[in-house]
Amino acid sequence: MSKKTLEVCLSPELIGLHLVSNKAVVVVDIFRATSCMVTGLAHGINSITPVATLEECKDLQTLGYIAGAERDAKKVEGFDLDNSPFSYMSEHLKGKNIAVTTTNGTYAISKVKDTAKVVIAGAFLNLNAVAEKIIDLNLDLIILCAGWKNKPCLEDSLFAGALAHNLRNNFTFADDSTTMCQRMYAEAQADTLSYVQEASHLKRLANLGIEKDISFCMKESVYTEVPVLKNNRLVLD
Amino acid sequence: MSKKTLEVCLSPELIGLHLVSNKAVVVVDIFRATSCMVTGLAHGINSITPVATLEECKDLQTLGYIAGAERDAKKVEGFDLDNSPFSYMSEHLKGKNIAVTTTNGTYAISKVKDTAKVVIAGAFLNLNAVAEKIIDLNLDLIILCAGWKNKPCLEDSLFAGALAHNLRNNFTFADDSTTMCQRMYAEAQADTLSYVQEASHLKRLANLGIEKDISFCMKESVYTEVPVLKNNRLVLD
Repeated sequence: MSKKTLEVCLSPELIGLHLVSNKAVVVVDIFRATSCMVTGLAHGINSITPVATLEECKDLQTLGYIAGAERDAKKVEGFDLDNSPFSYMSEHLKGKNIAVTTTNGTYAISKVKDTAKVVIAGAFLNLNAVAEKIIDLNLDLIILCAGWKNKPCLEDSLFAGALAHNLRNNFTFADDSTTMCQRMYAEAQADTLSYVQEASHLKRLANLGIEKDISFCMKESVYTEVPVLKNNRLVLD
Repeated sequence: MSKKTLEVCLSPELIGLHLVSNKAVVVVDIFRATSCMVTGLAHGINSITPVATLEECKDLQTLGYIAGAERDAKKVEGFDLDNSPFSYMSEHLKGKNIAVTTTNGTYAISKVKDTAKVVIAGAFLNLNAVAEKIIDLNLDLIILCAGWKNKPCLEDSLFAGALAHNLRNNFTFADDSTTMCQRMYAEAQADTLSYVQEASHLKRLANLGIEKDISFCMKESVYTEVPVLKNNRLVLD
């Protein structure tokens, strides 16, 4: 049996260059959307519905969802939840359905949700579990980096490299972005937190005083939960 | 005086995310468009007019230009020149005006030629000379990687990293792509030819039997000539 292929898409703006249908797509937005999604489902949230716009998120809030909205790394007024993984650990969210929109992560999901065969939320927090899930799925894979406003970013590319590194014996690397990211991770893996210190988005977040979020989001395989998109909701299988 | 900024654009598809006006743009297509341009001007070609389409190239051929056209790494029938740097060393091209269209490189130039303040063709072959020229210009800089059909590619990203590495004390890195590429080069610089062995485009070229072109294009600072776009022609200053 020939190996399945692995592609890395460094920006949602480039997803049109990839054939998405019949493939699994792991969407990643390390700071902090997909890190929050993994954390939330691991802590008992029932479902997370990612939406691209504030309006859609408001509509779901009206329907009874707990709504989280972030733009430019800050919570949007009128919504219930910010974009910190620690907020997603709250006892009062257990069993609840959440709607969420963020600057980059939910936008990236919206780009593939109608075409991909499977959409998964990946983060360092569930790295090994995502790798195992992907091997089980036995589908060609695209890792879609959310980036920052469509520009490639360091932390998402590094995660793409980490997942590619984990899967390197099981998949054929189908483009140069995969090779670049995997090598970046191979070099950085002993201390990924130091490696992302130069990330522009990290500087943006540090200015907001959320270093605690940053170091948490860089922890590897804290959780075994893998959020999968079903009927527009991220849930556990 | 505050430092000028340096951005790397990994694909022509992403150039819309960068503010190009009033900046210098170094366009790079290592395999092989910009390597050919540098080689050609260094060997006495008078000017090279990059055009995006075969039709424009044909029109210039009709007007008396020597015309080079490459698509999918192969010479297009009916044109005079292929896309090998060794072809650009020919005695009979000395003093001549060339028109050229390639899959990626001339397309990338077409994306910025009307908006950038200065457009330069960069390659490993003239790396140090480009760095010196950029410092002299004292403009904010974008390094635009031609990539492969709008996908980021290893060799162009590596060149972006090499130039960023050369300029790291003179410029502020303004995005994560710059940081990623510079680190890639810092790791690879002892043997860049080995580093690009996994490049998908290199495999494409190797299949065509042009390993000699590949190793030539990876040589650093063989030439001191810097092609600059003036009135739609790449010429020496």
